[in-house]
Amino acid sequence: MSQTSVAENSKTLTQCVYTFGGGKAEGTMKMKQLLGGKGANLAEMTNIGVPVPPGLTITTEVCNYYTDNAGQWPSTLLDELKQKMQWLESVTGKGFGDNENPLLLSVRSGAPVSMPGMMDTVLNLGLTAVSVEGLAKKANNARFAYDAYRRFIQMFSNVVLEVEHKLFEEILEAKKEAYKVEIDADLPVEALKELVTEYKSMIKKNKGIDFPDDPWEQLTRSVNAVFDSWGNDRAIYYRRLNGIAHNLGTAVNVQSMVFGNMGDTSLTGVCFSRDPSTGENVFYGEYLVNAQGEDVVAGIRTPKPISEMGKEFPELHKELVDTGRELEKYFKDIQDLEFTIEDGKLYMLQTRTGKRTAKAAVKIAVDFVSEGLIDQNEAILRVDPYQIDQLLHPMIDPKTKYTPIAKGLPASPGASVGKIVFDAAKAAELSEKSSDALILVREETSPEDIEGMAVSKGILTARGGMTSHAAVVARGMGKCCVAGCGDAKIREDEGVMIIGDQTFKEGDWITLNGTTGEVVAGKVDLIEPQLSGEFETILKWSDAVRRMKVRTNADTPHDSTVAREFGAEGIGLCRTEHMFFGEDRIPVVREMILAKDTASRESALAKLLPFQREDFIGIFRAMKGLPVTIRLLDPPLHEFLPHTAEDQQKLSQATGIDALEIKHTVESLHELNPMLGHRGCRLGLTYPEINTMQATAIIEAACVLKKEGIEVIPEIMVPLVGNTKEFETAKKVIDAAAKSTMQTQGVEVEYLVGTMIEVPRAAIVADKIAKTAEFFSFGTNDLTQMTMGFSRDDVGKFLPHYLEHDILEADPFAKLDQEGVGELVKLGIQKGRQSRPTLKIGICGEHGGEPSSVEFCHRVGMDYVSCSPFRVPIARIAAAQAALKDKQS
Amino acid sequence: MSQTSVAENSKTLTQCVYTFGGGKAEGTMKMKQLLGGKGANLAEMTNIGVPVPPGLTITTEVCNYYTDNAGQWPSTLLDELKQKMQWLESVTGKGFGDNENPLLLSVRSGAPVSMPGMMDTVLNLGLTAVSVEGLAKKANNARFAYDAYRRFIQMFSNVVLEVEHKLFEEILEAKKEAYKVEIDADLPVEALKELVTEYKSMIKKNKGIDFPDDPWEQLTRSVNAVFDSWGNDRAIYYRRLNGIAHNLGTAVNVQSMVFGNMGDTSLTGVCFSRDPSTGENVFYGEYLVNAQGEDVVAGIRTPKPISEMGKEFPELHKELVDTGRELEKYFKDIQDLEFTIEDGKLYMLQTRTGKRTAKAAVKIAVDFVSEGLIDQNEAILRVDPYQIDQLLHPMIDPKTKYTPIAKGLPASPGASVGKIVFDAAKAAELSEKSSDALILVREETSPEDIEGMAVSKGILTARGGMTSHAAVVARGMGKCCVAGCGDAKIREDEGVMIIGDQTFKEGDWITLNGTTGEVVAGKVDLIEPQLSGEFETILKWSDAVRRMKVRTNADTPHDSTVAREFGAEGIGLCRTEHMFFGEDRIPVVREMILAKDTASRESALAKLLPFQREDFIGIFRAMKGLPVTIRLLDPPLHEFLPHTAEDQQKLSQATGIDALEIKHTVESLHELNPMLGHRGCRLGLTYPEINTMQATAIIEAACVLKKEGIEVIPEIMVPLVGNTKEFETAKKVIDAAAKSTMQTQGVEVEYLVGTMIEVPRAAIVADKIAKTAEFFSFGTNDLTQMTMGFSRDDVGKFLPHYLEHDILEADPFAKLDQEGVGELVKLGIQKGRQSRPTLKIGICGEHGGEPSSVEFCHRVGMDYVSCSPFRVPIARIAAAQAALKDKQS
Repeated sequence: MSQTSVAENSKTLTQCVYTFGGGKAEGTMKMKQLLGGKGANLAEMTNIGVPVPPGLTITTEVCNYYTDNAGQWPSTLLDELKQKMQWLESVTGKGFGDNENPLLLSVRSGAPVSMPGMMDTVLNLGLTAVSVEGLAKKANNARFAYDAYRRFIQMFSNVVLEVEHKLFEEILEAKKEAYKVEIDADLPVEALKELVTEYKSMIKKNKGIDFPDDPWEQLTRSVNAVFDSWGNDRAIYYRRLNGIAHNLGTAVNVQSMVFGNMGDTSLTGVCFSRDPSTGENVFYGEYLVNAQGEDVVAGIRTPKPISEMGKEFPELHKELVDTGRELEKYFKDIQDLEFTIEDGKLYMLQTRTGKRTAKAAVKIAVDFVSEGLIDQNEAILRVDPYQIDQLLHPMIDPKTKYTPIAKGLPASPGASVGKIVFDAAKAAELSEKSSDALILVREETSPEDIEGMAVSKGILTARGGMTSHAAVVARGMGKCCVAGCGDAKIREDEGVMIIGDQTFKEGDWITLNGTTGEVVAGKVDLIEPQLSGEFETILKWSDAVRRMKVRTNADTPHDSTVAREFGAEGIGLCRTEHMFFGEDRIPVVREMILAKDTASRESALAKLLPFQREDFIGIFRAMKGLPVTIRLLDPPLHEFLPHTAEDQQKLSQATGIDALEIKHTVESLHELNPMLGHRGCRLGLTYPEINTMQATAIIEAACVLKKEGIEVIPEIMVPLVGNTKEFETAKKVIDAAAKSTMQTQGVEVEYLVGTMIEVPRAAIVADKIAKTAEFFSFGTNDLTQMTMGFSRDDVGKFLPHYLEHDILEADPFAKLDQEGVGELVKLGIQKGRQSRPTLKIGICGEHGGEPSSVEFCHRVGMDYVSCSPFRVPIARIAAAQAALKDKQS
Repeated sequence: MSQTSVAENSKTLTQCVYTFGGGKAEGTMKMKQLLGGKGANLAEMTNIGVPVPPGLTITTEVCNYYTDNAGQWPSTLLDELKQKMQWLESVTGKGFGDNENPLLLSVRSGAPVSMPGMMDTVLNLGLTAVSVEGLAKKANNARFAYDAYRRFIQMFSNVVLEVEHKLFEEILEAKKEAYKVEIDADLPVEALKELVTEYKSMIKKNKGIDFPDDPWEQLTRSVNAVFDSWGNDRAIYYRRLNGIAHNLGTAVNVQSMVFGNMGDTSLTGVCFSRDPSTGENVFYGEYLVNAQGEDVVAGIRTPKPISEMGKEFPELHKELVDTGRELEKYFKDIQDLEFTIEDGKLYMLQTRTGKRTAKAAVKIAVDFVSEGLIDQNEAILRVDPYQIDQLLHPMIDPKTKYTPIAKGLPASPGASVGKIVFDAAKAAELSEKSSDALILVREETSPEDIEGMAVSKGILTARGGMTSHAAVVARGMGKCCVAGCGDAKIREDEGVMIIGDQTFKEGDWITLNGTTGEVVAGKVDLIEPQLSGEFETILKWSDAVRRMKVRTNADTPHDSTVAREFGAEGIGLCRTEHMFFGEDRIPVVREMILAKDTASRESALAKLLPFQREDFIGIFRAMKGLPVTIRLLDPPLHEFLPHTAEDQQKLSQATGIDALEIKHTVESLHELNPMLGHRGCRLGLTYPEINTMQATAIIEAACVLKKEGIEVIPEIMVPLVGNTKEFETAKKVIDAAAKSTMQTQGVEVEYLVGTMIEVPRAAIVADKIAKTAEFFSFGTNDLTQMTMGFSRDDVGKFLPHYLEHDILEADPFAKLDQEGVGELVKLGIQKGRQSRPTLKIGICGEHGGEPSSVEFCHRVGMDYVSCSPFRVPIARIAAAQAALKDKQS
């Protein structure tokens, strides 16, 4: 890409600098890519008559040229800049470098995408040892002039000459002490003059140079510093964190200064056109009298709330609010504004779309519709589905400062505070004795830990990725989880967790932030989620425009009910094995696994059948006739067996089977790579009696419902199919069981038999499979695992390195890898529909609730997505946005 | 397919029956599909004037119609059959059902593909209680007539009426005792008449029916029995075993009988036109005087060798040999013949291509070229590459009868006899003390077992598939291996192996047949392989016609030398980690893994560097300038660490590292699915210093060779790449190391950097990877593993079931799954060459030595295949055959 940029640049750099001011601008708001967000909006404000100090924008193309050519300027830039500076001088009536009436400049970065605070700024540029006196005279305010000069020296030295900030602070602090003042603004002009002298000699001492006294040298070096700041570590890190391309470049805004520090009728401030936390329609922000912009941010003086301004400067306040409202109407979104009042006159220095919380985003979007500013579709697009988690889970109070001690994967959103417990059974025990919240801390979790997970507020694991057992189950429960936290050395047998040099024992308090993956020692304040009426409105609007259905992954009547309340339109994945771990079932499951022959296996299955039937009746009832996709037994059998000698001994006592024999069975079921082993449909093919039992239980349950007058169409799903024969063989057994069950029950029920597409081979031969399969559900967890060769349980060993070094852009278990895995999904859909044009197709991997993946599912023509209950609202909005974007393009 | 057949049949069944006899036939040898092999050859023999008893062939289409329509005949069949039976009556001058001069028939199956002994036959059909007397009179031989009749009753009853064979045997035995004769042929006519009566009443008693006395009923029921036999278990099993399609159907040959049992000038026999064991050009076979065909096979009388016939019946012998020679010339292949001499007149009953051993196949092919019968290309196509293993490894003596006690996967061909040893170290120890051969018996092998494997004659494992560690290493060593033998319960700690109710201890003798997967208790006789001059000739001819190069997978100078002797044209896969297990290296490798930081890891790597360099120098030297592809470190690191407390203690003593810390490191490196974990390029990306060390060692070695005047172009291969960034990042490190090494050495060497394509995603994005990758090597072991989701180490749990139940046609780790995995290979090649048309592409998975996979590699345009040294000759022939077939089509 950078190669292309050079080529393009050297050809098309016909205009390097764009002017704004004097009532009109060369740019517009549409030119963000070229002028950056700030430059484009300054131009637009100028054009619509908002008071903006005039200035110039050097384009992002120049930045890219500069980057690609080792810091060289395009050949035409200097001439063009000189010529447009003359224009700026004429429009401001001041002279750049003029000793009597100097034109002072602010030089600020402005990228196409907002990167707040990430790059450098220089104010008051153009002052020299001589012109500062001219300014003092002209403004009739020596204090102001020297205040501007000392600020310039400090900022320029810091940004361009790379003199450490604290060296200036030390001198300033000493000066305030000497003059016995508390704040900078109280320093008299003498003090400021001394500061200027002391700063300059400190710079000489440190860098061995005189502070540059030539305005053009100041300007060109500052422009270069802004360009250089595009490539600094802070900026690169921010871009990586926020998925911003590295080749956009930044523009440079060279703007004539207006001064909030000209005395008591001057002030400067930042504000939002509405409250960015709540979305309420009140002007929100703060200001400082007799100050320059950085003072508001720096926290040296405490700014006043903008409402104060209404009392202090009622007319200026009205003018500001009116301007803000006007800009909000014009840009049709909440505005984040910077302004300065110079001696009673208002100037707008910046306007941009305001960042907001999820709560505010939802309220503002709905309010804008009532106010007639945008339509419902636009409102839907205004809500960031990635933020929605904030509305559904407890979060760390944004006002709280805390220091994480470790970071894992953000496996399930929300935050939780609790006492550490290292054992699931112990968690269950403790939860009965005390109401103290618990955090289950495990090397990794397994299905046996479910009960312990259910009684805990949060889960922390050292291993496993975004689709590890802990992550999937926690998301299903809507419970906070940090997974794969490699920094945490968890020694379950010793009952300790070591992070860095801190050792945690059972009962110690910790806080987890599952939205960020952070782990914090001790307790941190949380805020509880609140669902607002506006959110319901957005969801209703979304439902009206989306094409795709949204289903849920749920294994119990309880989860099904929760999901329905979140708007799920069916179950896309009901994992039957999760039911096998109940206290009353696991002994029978084990009996089945330990069976020596088909007859004893069938006898154990006969005992399991009533349990399964009751499970399905409960789920069907909770879903009230909505479609339910039930996956047949999937995990390797050894997951159900006890692995410690002690547990094996117990099982031996319970079953009468020799303990050594149990040990041998467990050993014989051990697999080197269980994910690629004897699981999925391979179980039901080698032991068809399992399929028979499950199909019977499903159809019996459907018959019971039908007798109650509720029609259910169960969708029976065969997992891990890789070739046609596997599916056909399984389907025959299912159909036979269904037929015989319906005869026994004397009831006819409709049902479908379909398959997961999760083995890469299945996507390749999807045309053949679709000849008999009545639906497809893409199991993108396994499909990702096999297509990329990433074990989701072991990915913690290298994925963090991959993300940090840009080898991968995102965790493929969280965000569908569209380039690789997505190609197989597309192929599978295309081939499947080739054989069966009406094939019902969905996704039931964890990607079904991730917005960018949901959009992909829409684009490739899926009929529905399915996700954990707490992600259903997110998926509803994301599906609607996908449909709207599709229409737009 | 069967649907199609029905549709086709009902349309195109214009002719159901084809005649042959009276000097001409309606069919030809080209109509095997329609008339079956036997029918087509009978027609062809008739047309070229060989004496063949006239008859009819009912087509395979009729069989398929019959199968698809629940045993119904096509509407036209009966009329057509009647009409052509009239023709047969006229050409033989006999009457079907005529009481004085009855036309007797043989009814025999004949499928398009030879299925010897798999289906049923009825002889002497048409005899009735009345016509048997007519036959006696006409032949003036009552004994002959009743012999024919009692044979007919027995065969018809057995085949059509399903009366057990042994019931007839009991009566016959009693009769022989009563008449005090040893063999059937000595029974007088009275005895035969009694037999007829006793047979009939036994049938009446058993089946409650009278033996059918209507010739047409006999005929139609026999035809149906042949059709039915196509679907019997024996036939289905045979087809599955031999990969024959189930929808071919069988033809039925209804042929007028000639009688080898008419007295002392009648005889019957089977023979080959050359010796099918050695290929020598001598007539080979056996015959019986006064007998019918089944007597030769049944083993009741001992047949005489065909050479005897030259003394007994010199003229007839000459006529037979001349006819055989003529047929061999005509069909241009060794012929397997059946003949009958009726009262001094020779008739040929069947001719077909003779099955032969690999040794014979090679000799015959080469001899045929010298004799001018076929050209060199045809000779190459005549050799079955699947048989070649017979020439390269010891085999169980075909003359020996043995009963296997268990069956595993045929993981590495050849046979071996030895004493059981359960521990690799113990094997090494025993091999020094005694020269007794050893068989290493393990649950599964790991790289630590290499030395024990090297000193053993064969390897038996209970787990693991065709590409498990044991299988791959054994094939590399050319050593017999039976893997994944689930029937064997191996308790290494208890030092026993239990198979069924037999328990084996260390020192017990067993025999393995790695070609079939059989395990035999005790010692079985072996024969040693012999390489003949003819084989060298075939290989030379093959080399001249093949397009693809054949390389080898070799990790040591010794293997490289062996492979070169087998004709390898380079190394396609040199696995660097196999070098890491040497006694002098493993401590350093462990030091590297246990390193706490980059500096200590680099220091350990610096110690490994000279070892690796020497390895590469040795291999480069052995390969004398041929290309060598070296794969960078691939396996998960935990494979190199000690896993028992005892071994960890030892390592602790050796390194001074705390044993508990070692334990923790081993635990932290444990992975749930190591095949999808931290391995392959992921190692070299997270620890770039490993790539640097290996690249340095490779380039240093190449520099050393270049200084000696030998040019090597090392091909450095990055394993397990799934996305472009992975490859690019690795390549940068390799290039940097290469550049700096060449500067230090003062030598420029050419080298390539390429990648394995083994992760499915790599095939999908091959166009992007090929932008920087300079070659592709398809790692079809891993690609199969991930595309199908089959762990090659765990596949033994369900693969046997899959094969037995036709869910899979073949073990995909042995034979490339062209439908699924093959599609990804094609995609990867097409996309790779799209970006880089000259991309060098090969395969280094175990499929590179499997004939059908080699053909696939040719078809999809690969430049070379690479396989274990002992499979190189097979691949050379297979590649030549692929090129020839390609030209033909």
